[in-house]
Amino acid sequence: MKELDFFKDALEKSLGSRNVNVEPEQLYSPINYILSLGGKRLRPVLTLMTCDFFGGDYKEAMPAAMAVELFHNFSLIHDDIMDEAPLRRGKETVHKKWDINTGILSGDAMLILAYQYFESYEPALFQELAKLFSKTAIEVCEGQQYDVDFETRNDVSIPEYLKMIEYKTAVLVGAAMKMGAIVAKTSKKNKEDIYEFGRNLGIAFQLQDDYLDAFGDPETFGKQVGGDILSNKKTFLFLTALQSGTENDVAELRTFFKSKSENNAQKIEKVKSIFETSGASKATQLEIEKYTDKAFETLENLDLSEDKKEKLRVFAKNLMNRQV
Amino acid sequence: MKELDFFKDALEKSLGSRNVNVEPEQLYSPINYILSLGGKRLRPVLTLMTCDFFGGDYKEAMPAAMAVELFHNFSLIHDDIMDEAPLRRGKETVHKKWDINTGILSGDAMLILAYQYFESYEPALFQELAKLFSKTAIEVCEGQQYDVDFETRNDVSIPEYLKMIEYKTAVLVGAAMKMGAIVAKTSKKNKEDIYEFGRNLGIAFQLQDDYLDAFGDPETFGKQVGGDILSNKKTFLFLTALQSGTENDVAELRTFFKSKSENNAQKIEKVKSIFETSGASKATQLEIEKYTDKAFETLENLDLSEDKKEKLRVFAKNLMNRQV
Repeated sequence: MKELDFFKDALEKSLGSRNVNVEPEQLYSPINYILSLGGKRLRPVLTLMTCDFFGGDYKEAMPAAMAVELFHNFSLIHDDIMDEAPLRRGKETVHKKWDINTGILSGDAMLILAYQYFESYEPALFQELAKLFSKTAIEVCEGQQYDVDFETRNDVSIPEYLKMIEYKTAVLVGAAMKMGAIVAKTSKKNKEDIYEFGRNLGIAFQLQDDYLDAFGDPETFGKQVGGDILSNKKTFLFLTALQSGTENDVAELRTFFKSKSENNAQKIEKVKSIFETSGASKATQLEIEKYTDKAFETLENLDLSEDKKEKLRVFAKNLMNRQV
Repeated sequence: MKELDFFKDALEKSLGSRNVNVEPEQLYSPINYILSLGGKRLRPVLTLMTCDFFGGDYKEAMPAAMAVELFHNFSLIHDDIMDEAPLRRGKETVHKKWDINTGILSGDAMLILAYQYFESYEPALFQELAKLFSKTAIEVCEGQQYDVDFETRNDVSIPEYLKMIEYKTAVLVGAAMKMGAIVAKTSKKNKEDIYEFGRNLGIAFQLQDDYLDAFGDPETFGKQVGGDILSNKKTFLFLTALQSGTENDVAELRTFFKSKSENNAQKIEKVKSIFETSGASKATQLEIEKYTDKAFETLENLDLSEDKKEKLRVFAKNLMNRQV
């Protein structure tokens, strides 16, 4: 069985040698730029790995993996415009380096290029992959819209939040794995189960991201700890604290999240303390565990050898321990 | 044989009864809004009509026609953002009525929804249609990028301009017709020829649009006559005048197109006069004729009954006489 690094190398090679359109330069340079910024390539690697796991040739899953990576980067370009983000992986975002119009149009082209990667498959496979891709892509758009909506809403429920992160983040993880399974031509049940595995793991991962944003180690987390708190983001921690905190906690939280605080460090400390005393911190950890367990449960059903299941378990654990 | 109005009615019915997603409202309302603004629905009508012409059941071409119309409207939403256009068909553009972020995301969703319309076809047809669709969509993006690039370039050549309008406008007309031919399962040669017919007619139509923008009848043209001149657009008229005008004409044109003029009416009159004296006006008319003739020539090759060819001829003539 091959290791993650093997698949990542193969993907990087494929990214490096893809047929690059050069004209018009202003359309294609931003695409090459964002793809060159690197990253873990987690989603496309999952496509290749899953194909290999189900007995397929990972090379045959490469076009699908490329489609997944292009789609992911399309969504980053457009999301960064919407979030007015200046940086992506420590470098200028596309709309900062060029302009908003360039970001819009290059993103559009990238979404279409993603679809084109499926063209190398025979018709039945093409249709199965493209259908899953479109369904997932629409859900990602819906998730992004919910995320935008939540910024100005004060009545976001916890189920709504979970649906938002499922759509915005988790379904693409599930779909990336399922695409590998589709290319490997495994059973319908295996395809469905591996999708559930990825989807649940994706939700757990995103919940953990929320948790670490407040309680992570600044040395290893990679992003600014407390960033969600400063931007008044309605995360699982926040919504749970509203639900289970004392009247006083809730009033304080509402006040903190109404405006940009003058004293950042104090706001972070105070909010974190409410997250702890209200039990939100503990509840979030339990929720992460719940979704991780769900992922592990579907794993048991898979028609895979025990050593491959163990590999997936180790992968999931490493991912959740942020060692992937 | 059915008339254009018949197909337009069928399309409007299909648009009115499509499965509309309601949540998130902010994502789907703009899609319903722009589709409700009406318009000639020329492209999807061509898909239905072409299918019928080649002996297919136009109803089977409806999903493809819907995909074409959704794609066209996706491109309008994103183009209107880039052009900072306040109005579309006399109503507020999506990004004006909502905001830029809403325009970006709703447009993205619309592009994906367009792809989903092909899912109702069996795999081989699905692949053939989606491939043509992606190729066309990428060309439309490239055309839009060239159009944006030309705004700040002073060395645009006539072949470059023709390629721009071909990509931005004409290929979708060709593809819309070809999709109807694909659904009708006509011969490869017929599919290619009808594409060429649509593509050449599309170029002729866009060139005529440029011409009428300067020399059209304000009563019937529908847009502000002289709009291209006021926005310093490098149209075929302008580029030809630069090429064939006297040194004096060229110097005057360059000066006029360097800045927004204070005296609009005078600028329009002066530029139009240069377009005439330089021979650019006549040359544009000849170019329109050239592409219309090309379209008619491919028509002759088509494996269609004489009365159907005559219908297409009448359609083309009506289109060029702005009676469609």
